[in-house]
Amino acid sequence: MTPWDHLATHEAAVLQTVFWSAGASRLALADQLAYSKTKANSVVAGLLDQGLLEETGLQGSTGGRRPETLQLHRDLGVLIGADLGATSVDVAIMAPDLRVLAHHAEAADVLSGPGVVLSRVRALMRQLLAQCGKTPAQVMGIGLGVPGPVDFAHGMLVNPPLMPQWDGFSIRDYLREDYAAPVFVDNDVNLMALAELWRLKRSLPNFLVIKVGTGIGCGIVCHGEVYRGANGSAGDVGHICVDAHGPRCHCGNLGCVEAMAAGPAMARRATEAALAGESALLAECLQNNGVITPLDVAQASRQGDTAANHIIQDAGSLIGQMLASMVNFFNPSHVFIGGGITRIGPLFLASVRQSVYKRSLALSTRHLDIQFTPLAEKAGLVGAGVLALQETLKQRGAAA
Amino acid sequence: MTPWDHLATHEAAVLQTVFWSAGASRLALADQLAYSKTKANSVVAGLLDQGLLEETGLQGSTGGRRPETLQLHRDLGVLIGADLGATSVDVAIMAPDLRVLAHHAEAADVLSGPGVVLSRVRALMRQLLAQCGKTPAQVMGIGLGVPGPVDFAHGMLVNPPLMPQWDGFSIRDYLREDYAAPVFVDNDVNLMALAELWRLKRSLPNFLVIKVGTGIGCGIVCHGEVYRGANGSAGDVGHICVDAHGPRCHCGNLGCVEAMAAGPAMARRATEAALAGESALLAECLQNNGVITPLDVAQASRQGDTAANHIIQDAGSLIGQMLASMVNFFNPSHVFIGGGITRIGPLFLASVRQSVYKRSLALSTRHLDIQFTPLAEKAGLVGAGVLALQETLKQRGAAA
Repeated sequence: MTPWDHLATHEAAVLQTVFWSAGASRLALADQLAYSKTKANSVVAGLLDQGLLEETGLQGSTGGRRPETLQLHRDLGVLIGADLGATSVDVAIMAPDLRVLAHHAEAADVLSGPGVVLSRVRALMRQLLAQCGKTPAQVMGIGLGVPGPVDFAHGMLVNPPLMPQWDGFSIRDYLREDYAAPVFVDNDVNLMALAELWRLKRSLPNFLVIKVGTGIGCGIVCHGEVYRGANGSAGDVGHICVDAHGPRCHCGNLGCVEAMAAGPAMARRATEAALAGESALLAECLQNNGVITPLDVAQASRQGDTAANHIIQDAGSLIGQMLASMVNFFNPSHVFIGGGITRIGPLFLASVRQSVYKRSLALSTRHLDIQFTPLAEKAGLVGAGVLALQETLKQRGAAA
Repeated sequence: MTPWDHLATHEAAVLQTVFWSAGASRLALADQLAYSKTKANSVVAGLLDQGLLEETGLQGSTGGRRPETLQLHRDLGVLIGADLGATSVDVAIMAPDLRVLAHHAEAADVLSGPGVVLSRVRALMRQLLAQCGKTPAQVMGIGLGVPGPVDFAHGMLVNPPLMPQWDGFSIRDYLREDYAAPVFVDNDVNLMALAELWRLKRSLPNFLVIKVGTGIGCGIVCHGEVYRGANGSAGDVGHICVDAHGPRCHCGNLGCVEAMAAGPAMARRATEAALAGESALLAECLQNNGVITPLDVAQASRQGDTAANHIIQDAGSLIGQMLASMVNFFNPSHVFIGGGITRIGPLFLASVRQSVYKRSLALSTRHLDIQFTPLAEKAGLVGAGVLALQETLKQRGAAA
């Protein structure tokens, strides 16, 4: 039993605001929460007393007494974040300000099913906690990202095309056996969007995050919040048609952007080019490794390989074509592109941009900014940490 | 100078809540606004005293004193709503509960420019006000819908493809010359979405409204609010590509859904069918009237004309194909279809549905409801009324 368990609604709101603003003065808190100065001071005093907040240094001021910066107390506890990809798993222990205290990444195959994958995640969580000298009781909240549509309220995947064995398995119930802290599960690209929203301190209310890896997904931020849709499947853009005469996708339809432009499609096209004698570099790679990965295509492109360049440009162009429709519909201020694809480099990004600007309306692209996710490969884990703390505070505040 | 000009923030909030709930008890108000009962009672008493609220009848109750239903006072004033289409103009005077007190609709051509069209709108407003015995001083707020992307903050169209002469013309400044009341301008389909949101008393937080007429547009409701996008062009779906090898659109791209499936495209295809001798009915219509309209196609379809049926089914199918991508992306609970097209009937709706269910992911369509807009052709005007009252109250409340 910690003071953490007895948060009043106002206290949870103040902690949430401090977390999202990455440090705030009493005055800024009162302003953001529409509290009187007296009320803000009194809630803050209580939180300082309980050791949930601490004061660190001084902020700039225009005169008078300099306001101290309030932060979540460094001894408040830790967060566990996990980012499950189709072929990898990342687990981290984070401080309340999302500094990474311990981190481990390794290959994993979601197709081996929830039992195998999650028991490994569980072991990694224990191991990393021990590594930074923390106990399960010090964990405040746990956040987990998965590559498929999530029933957020129940913490489970629903009809996940890339990992059918996980359908309806309660990840939340499985993981919370070891911890008193609550477990929250969300789609991986929603977490990337949440991470960028946190990095930006909510300064951009309407943007998209596109993840290109084994699949293609989109995180949507609308009115300053991550938008999950009526059934939690918002942003499921991988099966949008970009060519009515394209190849058949595993979903049954023709010409889905995922079937034509995600990692596996690039690797397949590169293998074809190698076998057809169109690229000495790719052929050499195929011979040496028995397989060509999207990263091999990137490397070949960087060495000026024409076939590799074509493959990357085509993929960027198709993704841009799908994105053009989303930009017309949603009119975001920014599109951030992430996932393994970011390592494929500037040629890819240029093709995406060209395709979007060609097909979207002038008004939606006049101020549109398309770039790689600034948090890069950390976005998923940071988002898991944000989810863990944000939702835990919401729960504590609501229970008050 | 009316009491209306001196609203306190809490008073504006109570009036807003009463308006959106179409009548509410003091208890329900306290609950929705998170006020104490004492505070709710005192604000309501003040508003009753000022003649801004009135009590009407009794609500059902589970025991104790029966709570009265509060409504905006019927003598509060009137709202003016106007719905400008590409080829028509609708003006109405409405009571605070959006009952229509006077209404006039006539043909108009937006291409004749803002000077001609708006001076007619201005005359109609004066005329209709007089008709129901009201003066300009009794007007609380004015709402206007236009068929193009709107800079909402400045009340003007920006880069409107259907009405280039209106670019940057301040409709707001022009119309407010006659009235002390504020003028608000929004895209026509955003107003249809706002109208449905009001009809539903905000019970559906995430849905789309598609308008098919001379153009094709989409209104987006997200997190219980109309979403306008970063530059006010959200929902501009008419130029989404549905056939990379389709005809060239006036926007310069190939195969835009608007160029292939909106009213003019249907009329063009019907004319071709008539000239090619594929339909005796359509040929007769062309001969008699010199032109075929989308409504003629509908009529021919109802009489079992095969060519007309094909045209309607193809249009529904193409719109459904575009909509399938939006459904994958946005995962709405409902899609409401409106505009002139609703009069084309069930064959059109069936084709849209079939196309969406075929191309969208199972999870996004599992509970998806696609139907014609329940408010039908009144949606635009009702939305203009909602906009007028909602934004006026926001402004009064903020100025307090």
